[in-house]
Amino acid sequence: MIYPKVALIGLGLIGGSFSLAAKRAGLVGHVAGHARTAETRETALRLGLCDSVHATAAEAAKDADLVLLCVPMGAMAAVAEEIAPVLKPGATVSDVGSVKGPILEAVAPFIPAGVHLIPGHPLAGTEHSGPEAGFAELFENRWVILTPPEDADAAAVQRLSDCWEGCGAHVDTMDPAHHDLVLAVTSHVPHLIAYTMVGVADDMRRVTQSEVIKYSAAGFRDFTRIAASDPTMWRDVFLTNKQATLEILGRFTEELFALQRAIRTEDGPQLFDYFTRTRAIRRGIVQAGQDTAAPDFGRSAAGKKT
Amino acid sequence: MIYPKVALIGLGLIGGSFSLAAKRAGLVGHVAGHARTAETRETALRLGLCDSVHATAAEAAKDADLVLLCVPMGAMAAVAEEIAPVLKPGATVSDVGSVKGPILEAVAPFIPAGVHLIPGHPLAGTEHSGPEAGFAELFENRWVILTPPEDADAAAVQRLSDCWEGCGAHVDTMDPAHHDLVLAVTSHVPHLIAYTMVGVADDMRRVTQSEVIKYSAAGFRDFTRIAASDPTMWRDVFLTNKQATLEILGRFTEELFALQRAIRTEDGPQLFDYFTRTRAIRRGIVQAGQDTAAPDFGRSAAGKKT
Repeated sequence: MIYPKVALIGLGLIGGSFSLAAKRAGLVGHVAGHARTAETRETALRLGLCDSVHATAAEAAKDADLVLLCVPMGAMAAVAEEIAPVLKPGATVSDVGSVKGPILEAVAPFIPAGVHLIPGHPLAGTEHSGPEAGFAELFENRWVILTPPEDADAAAVQRLSDCWEGCGAHVDTMDPAHHDLVLAVTSHVPHLIAYTMVGVADDMRRVTQSEVIKYSAAGFRDFTRIAASDPTMWRDVFLTNKQATLEILGRFTEELFALQRAIRTEDGPQLFDYFTRTRAIRRGIVQAGQDTAAPDFGRSAAGKKT
Repeated sequence: MIYPKVALIGLGLIGGSFSLAAKRAGLVGHVAGHARTAETRETALRLGLCDSVHATAAEAAKDADLVLLCVPMGAMAAVAEEIAPVLKPGATVSDVGSVKGPILEAVAPFIPAGVHLIPGHPLAGTEHSGPEAGFAELFENRWVILTPPEDADAAAVQRLSDCWEGCGAHVDTMDPAHHDLVLAVTSHVPHLIAYTMVGVADDMRRVTQSEVIKYSAAGFRDFTRIAASDPTMWRDVFLTNKQATLEILGRFTEELFALQRAIRTEDGPQLFDYFTRTRAIRRGIVQAGQDTAAPDFGRSAAGKKT
C-alpha cells in the first residue's frame, strides 16, 4: 500500500476512476471524498468510490497521505486555501487538471512547508462526466504527466508515480510550461475546433439538424464526441491555458488559410501532398498503442470498457 | 436477384465492400471488375470481390445491368466516356463519389438515351483504402444518398435503392446541390480541419513528433484517424465541392475567431454557453444510432468489424 489515506476533492469521472483503479490494485487504504452537492457525495458512497464522504474539503483532507484535487481548475486555488491548515506534514498534494503552469502558481502559495505539491495530469477521459461515469480501466495504457517543482522531494514524486503506474498508466515528468504547449497541440486546440465545427452545423439554416445527425458518420460524428465533453472543465482549460492555446490557434488558422487558398486556386498537387504527409503521424499513433488500426473508424479498439 | 450482372469500375474499399455485401445478400449475380493495375485486379479476384476482372472499364461494363463507378471523382468523366459505347439499353449507371452536383454534370453528357444515370453516395468508410480494406458489414445502418435527375426512371431508382437496402443501408434521395452542402458540413470541412490540425502538429518545432504521438489520447487521436483517409479521394472532394466547402469554411473561421476572442478577453460565460449547446447534437447522433454512448470515446461501439 502506497497511501493509507487518500482524500479525493471532487468526485467526477477522473476522481472516481482513480479511486476504483487504486483500490482494485491495493495501492490505497481509506478514501475520503468531498463533493459540493450531497447528491454527488451519496452517489460516490453508493458506488464504492469513497469509504467516507465529507461536506467540506478540509474534513476530507484531514490526516490524508495523498490529497488529489479533481475539481475544475477554476476552483483549485480556493480548495488549496481551505485545506492548507489541516494538511499533514509529509503529505502529498496533487491534482488532475489539464493545465499545469497556472495551477502550480495558483495552488503553491497555500501549501505549507513540509507538504509535497506535485501537480499531475492523467491524459484519459471520455465524453461523459460525473461519478457514475468512472471505471477502473480508464488509465490503462494511458499517460500521466507529472510536473513536480525543481526542488520536489524525489521520494514523494516516486510514490505518486508508482501509484499511477499501479493504476495501469505510464508516467512522464515534464516542465509545466512545456506540458501546457504539448497539450494545446494534442488536446486543447483540437477540442476548440471540434466545438466550433459542431456549433457551425447547429447554426446552419439550410441544413436541418436531423440531416446533420443522420449523415454524421462521414466524419462529423467524431467531432461531436469530442464536443460533448464537460463544458465547465473546458471553459477553465481555455481560460487557464490562454497563451499556448492562442499560439497554436494562430498556427492552425495560418495553415487552414493556406489550404483554403489551395482549394480556391484548385491546386490539386498541394492538397494531395498535404493529405499524404499527415498519414505518417497516424501510423505512429497506432504503432505506439494509443489507438487501433481496426477499420470503421476504430470503433472496436483497445482500451474499451466492456 | 436485382442485377444479374454488375460491373465494378474501381476495386477499392467501397467497391469491394459493396460486392461482398451484395453477393452475401444474393442481390447480384456475376460481378465483373476493373482496376487500373494488374495487382489490384488479382487481389480482387483472390479475395472473391469479383467473378471476373478486366484490363479495361469497357470490357467490364459490357452487358452489365448495373455499372457502379468507384473511381476517384477526377477520373469519372473519362470512364463514362470510355464505357458509353458498350452500355446495355435499360442498364443503370451509378457511382459512389462524395460530391454529386459536379459528377452529374461531368458524367451525364456521355450516358446514352435508354441508360439510367442515378448518382449515389454511401456515407460509409474507414481510414483504410484498397481492395483488402473491404468488408461486407461496411454499409450496415449507414445512409446512402441517391441524387437521381428529375426525369429519372422511377423503377430504376427503386431497384438501386432496394439493392443498397439489401446491403444493410438506409436510402434517401436528395437534390445534388443540397447533398453537396450537407456533406460539406458533415464531412468535407471536418476532414479539412482534421488534416490541418495534424499538419500543425507535424510542423511544431518545440513539440516533438513522439510527444504528439504519445499524448494523442486526449483528443488529437480522433483527428489523426480522419486525417489518414485516402489523399487522392480527398483532393478530388475539395476540388469538386469547392463552392460549398469554401462557404462552410468561411462560417467556421468566423465562429472560431469569435471563440478565440472569448479566450483572449477571458469571457468564461460565452465559452461555457457555447460548449453546453454543442452537447445536444451529440445526444441526437447517439439516439439516431449513428454512434454509441459507450465511454472511452466510443471505442467499443456498434457497427464494428470483428
